[in-house]
Amino acid sequence: MPSPRSYLAAAVQMTASSSKEENLAKAETFVRLAAERGAALVVLPEVFAWRGPRKEEPAQLESIPGPTSERLAELARSLGIHLLAGSFLEKTTEQRAYNTSLLFSPTGDLLAQYRKIHLFDIDLPGQVSIKESDTKKPGREVVSARTELGTVGLSICYDLRFPELYRGLADRGAELICVPAAFTFPTGAAHWEALLRARAIENQSYLIAPNQIGKNVYGFADYGNSMIIDPWGKILARAPDKECLITAEVDRDYLEKVRRELPCLAHRRL
Amino acid sequence: MPSPRSYLAAAVQMTASSSKEENLAKAETFVRLAAERGAALVVLPEVFAWRGPRKEEPAQLESIPGPTSERLAELARSLGIHLLAGSFLEKTTEQRAYNTSLLFSPTGDLLAQYRKIHLFDIDLPGQVSIKESDTKKPGREVVSARTELGTVGLSICYDLRFPELYRGLADRGAELICVPAAFTFPTGAAHWEALLRARAIENQSYLIAPNQIGKNVYGFADYGNSMIIDPWGKILARAPDKECLITAEVDRDYLEKVRRELPCLAHRRL
Repeated sequence: MPSPRSYLAAAVQMTASSSKEENLAKAETFVRLAAERGAALVVLPEVFAWRGPRKEEPAQLESIPGPTSERLAELARSLGIHLLAGSFLEKTTEQRAYNTSLLFSPTGDLLAQYRKIHLFDIDLPGQVSIKESDTKKPGREVVSARTELGTVGLSICYDLRFPELYRGLADRGAELICVPAAFTFPTGAAHWEALLRARAIENQSYLIAPNQIGKNVYGFADYGNSMIIDPWGKILARAPDKECLITAEVDRDYLEKVRRELPCLAHRRL
Repeated sequence: MPSPRSYLAAAVQMTASSSKEENLAKAETFVRLAAERGAALVVLPEVFAWRGPRKEEPAQLESIPGPTSERLAELARSLGIHLLAGSFLEKTTEQRAYNTSLLFSPTGDLLAQYRKIHLFDIDLPGQVSIKESDTKKPGREVVSARTELGTVGLSICYDLRFPELYRGLADRGAELICVPAAFTFPTGAAHWEALLRARAIENQSYLIAPNQIGKNVYGFADYGNSMIIDPWGKILARAPDKECLITAEVDRDYLEKVRRELPCLAHRRL
């Protein structure tokens, strides 16, 4: 298949529950809808497959390949699309799991596997208190994949606060960067849009950022406002406050124009 | 003098002409007004002292120390304030000048000298076409200064697109970062706010960003919208579309609270 100069990308905004079957069915419905609308790439949010009490986590861990990854590979293959499975919990040989994102090709092949590097340990008194590193292990590798749609860079949620990761992705030639997230309401309202736009602007890349929305199983709310942003920093699509699908065109000629006219990636000196 | 936990900072938004005397007098008026209002730190924009045709540039270059730097040192001393002289053109032993920012103490001492590292070479057809590197030489050093007001990081305009510089300033302990600028209208409208807010958020620092405003001597417009931003990314002050002064409180206890509750600077892994 020839590499298209432009294509439709989609982001799925959803609220994951503690029923994996329910979440996977919901995600599948959205992915099918996206494919019907012509999307060549569909991006699911962080921990879309399962969110639940910490004590139930061990029973939800899966190896890769495993039942969930194989179901998603088959979904990508049957629809002939690229599918970024935001993240789910990857079983390791140790106590702690990885928070892992997978990119599947239209033939169902695994193109990339990214383990979240920056874990969310935060304590906003009276708002959000989380220590992801209690049960998760940080990844170590910056991950991108050359695909028919161009070079895709992978990241997850809290990674967004670390510009050096996105510089690493730009160095690897990323033209489009995925930021599946479960970004909380207070931090999302304050930081989500500015950080997403800055990553797009400074790395002159498309960003596809599907977020979870609404009250989650932990009792606090996620911010929603899933976005697709172009390399000039323009928000091409923004999700309303409900579970939904957003789409926008990724135009690689436009990306080249931006990089040619304002060649800041070539101006790096440090 | 004891190091204050909070103080007032000011940013001067102005339109520099090709008359150095006029520009310095105007800057001085704003700095005096800021001091009257209680500002302990005043930040002037990039090339506030002179902007004019390229062919007249060589006659405007000055050594440091030199007449302009001495006048500004004396201004800081007479008012008992910290003064960041956004930038002016520093004579070198070579053909090309540096675009240099100076920080003076309330005793008139030179605390820091920063030479702009990233030069603005851009070609937006029909909008802005500039090649700063034709007549300017890039600096090489990341510069910060420990002051009574905390650690201050220096940067200039186009540097804003390069997150690695601000990481370098954060590594040096910057709590407040100056971004004097002459950010153009089209790029400013698209990028200024998002990039400034992202630098504040990801480095959990105050940002003081005075910009030039309105039509400049080169025939295109600068964006104005000078800002003072807090470490949570909130815009504390934004300039209206005219030459003016903005002020806001810098609160170092609030900065510590932000860094304690969301310790992302301690979570860096790459």
